Amino acid sequence: MNQASLPVRPAMAAAEARGDSVRVVRSDGTARDYDCMWLRDGCGCRRCRHPQTLERTFNLLGVPRDLAAASAEITAAGALKVVWANDGHVSEYDADWFGDREGLTGPHPHPHPRPWLWDSGLATRLPGHDHAEIMRDAEALHAWLGAIRDTGLALLRGAPCEPGEVVRIAERIAYPRRTNFGSRFDVVALANPNSNAYTGLEIHGHTDLVFYRTPPGIFLLHCLANDAAGGDSTFADGFRVAAALRDEDPEAFAVLTRVPFEFRFRDSDYDIRHRWPLIRLGEDGEAAEIRFNIQCMHAPAAAGEEMAAVYRAYRKFAALIDDARFKLRFRLAPGEVIGFDNSRVVHGRTAFDEAGGRHLQGIYIDHDEFLSRIRMLERSA
Amino acid sequence: MNQASLPVRPAMAAAEARGDSVRVVRSDGTARDYDCMWLRDGCGCRRCRHPQTLERTFNLLGVPRDLAAASAEITAAGALKVVWANDGHVSEYDADWFGDREGLTGPHPHPHPRPWLWDSGLATRLPGHDHAEIMRDAEALHAWLGAIRDTGLALLRGAPCEPGEVVRIAERIAYPRRTNFGSRFDVVALANPNSNAYTGLEIHGHTDLVFYRTPPGIFLLHCLANDAAGGDSTFADGFRVAAALRDEDPEAFAVLTRVPFEFRFRDSDYDIRHRWPLIRLGEDGEAAEIRFNIQCMHAPAAAGEEMAAVYRAYRKFAALIDDARFKLRFRLAPGEVIGFDNSRVVHGRTAFDEAGGRHLQGIYIDHDEFLSRIRMLERSA
Repeated sequence: MNQASLPVRPAMAAAEARGDSVRVVRSDGTARDYDCMWLRDGCGCRRCRHPQTLERTFNLLGVPRDLAAASAEITAAGALKVVWANDGHVSEYDADWFGDREGLTGPHPHPHPRPWLWDSGLATRLPGHDHAEIMRDAEALHAWLGAIRDTGLALLRGAPCEPGEVVRIAERIAYPRRTNFGSRFDVVALANPNSNAYTGLEIHGHTDLVFYRTPPGIFLLHCLANDAAGGDSTFADGFRVAAALRDEDPEAFAVLTRVPFEFRFRDSDYDIRHRWPLIRLGEDGEAAEIRFNIQCMHAPAAAGEEMAAVYRAYRKFAALIDDARFKLRFRLAPGEVIGFDNSRVVHGRTAFDEAGGRHLQGIYIDHDEFLSRIRMLERSA
Repeated sequence: MNQASLPVRPAMAAAEARGDSVRVVRSDGTARDYDCMWLRDGCGCRRCRHPQTLERTFNLLGVPRDLAAASAEITAAGALKVVWANDGHVSEYDADWFGDREGLTGPHPHPHPRPWLWDSGLATRLPGHDHAEIMRDAEALHAWLGAIRDTGLALLRGAPCEPGEVVRIAERIAYPRRTNFGSRFDVVALANPNSNAYTGLEIHGHTDLVFYRTPPGIFLLHCLANDAAGGDSTFADGFRVAAALRDEDPEAFAVLTRVPFEFRFRDSDYDIRHRWPLIRLGEDGEAAEIRFNIQCMHAPAAAGEEMAAVYRAYRKFAALIDDARFKLRFRLAPGEVIGFDNSRVVHGRTAFDEAGGRHLQGIYIDHDEFLSRIRMLERSA
């Protein structure tokens, strides 16, 4: 997951300037040629990177097209040292420098590094974490966030049943993602709802705010009261369901990775629209993003002649999302906070009696800020 | 741009239930068969859509696989009326209903409906708008936002030179996109900068916050003071530059649409990373998103053997971005606000004297909220 898990490479033993590349020989005898433009552009000296911002100040356009190394050697500290032929500038590259760049060509690591897929069996081993610990301790916070990242959801217990507590929890991570529903929202039955979430209706498994170009990444949902009849929570691993669809109906899977669906949200203040396939594949060919929401699906952006096949695939996926094989169903208790990945985990609820006392508060944090916090916790560990 | 520009179709004249489809014959004699599942799923009656939320409450999974129409006819008002065989439910579909769904199969309309590409010649006809008018008048606001959407940038004149005015302008549109730099930011030279933007250094043409999964969509930049020596603003149409690259060097263009680049931002609070090609193509094969930023480009995610070709393409694109053929260069005056599309327009500045008085305030609004405001202004027009 972090840099420490990368394999350690043999030390650099010798270097040779070879025109537009530099050859590095490692202690195990293997050799590799590195492009001079790539090396020059990556120079991290104080003249090429701003010492405070760490951003590049070096202008690659000022370098001649026939850039070449005048000399290359391995320093006593084991770094590659290159002197550039055009201007005599000296650059040094250590093992960390290479590790941070040569590892970039693998499958895309964001936002889901090799997730572990789960089904209904997760019910007996749902990751549970303690509110007081994650608020106090960086290691406990890292464990909770890591579980959300890797499993897609993780439960926090023992949170105070106070309105706004979910904001304090979110601030341990980053700042909220503001949406048309605000920065923080109360999930209760409203007299004039602008979403089915604010009724007592049953809600099928879905991901939130699918009508945004980038729907919110991480969803924190805090239960303040749950006395109404009904209103159990449901969850399923969308990546697991997508894998099942591919196994059981490859044609339907192919349709849903290709055909965009138009999603829309409309109320008196907003008219937000986006069109995207229900299953987005990552660079490694596995599901990397699920966008599924019966409530705000406007219509498939498909030609009339393929509509029957599109609806067959859509119904099949919807049925698998609802399948008991994949579904967790449990009742959120007051003081519990479920954190989950909205681009992976579909969530829903059973119908509840609007007269009863059911009150949840929710907040979103985007993947970028969420993953940034994990990296920062690992940096200081 | 809006629905009104869609061609008016001949009226529906006759309908026929044909098992799993319904045939509609139009007044010009043309006929088309519509899938029953698509029709049933789109039913907009008060039992199938929540009357207040407008979200779908109908559950498609409750409909039998062999769904069929029992009857189909055209009503006196010209709508298609279908009675469903399984449960006798009645659905009606008018011309607007069809127009809103059959048009979905064209090229993706978000966020750039057929932009008009420009080069340095735009300098003499840069769209100019008046601050007082857009703050007061919906039509003037729509004209300014439409120019930003279609041209990629448009200037506002006559804004009060008061800190925070850019927030009031943004609130005419929606709410700000918060980032690691905050919700509003001051572009001035700082003693401890975390970005080259906060120095007096020259900044090459770039798009902002490329290290986010979704960089901010629209950038509003308000000039409060510009007395420092230097500090001219530069802009170029990234879509125009990408088109030039494709014309002049198709191989370089292909590389930049395929090879991801890793972007990173790191300071004492954040470590944000994303990997994406510099040019993303839309469904129509044209450039739909530019991500270019020399300052925070960490390294190309390319194999060693193709690094020379990647750097050749990168340098070529960077040189075109800097090419006088495509570049606007002018000095922002106090009271001017430039609004531009950060996924299309690259912006930069010449170096300035850090001792001088140069003060800009910036704010971002994402595409979704920006386009939503345009739709709402069109809805109420």
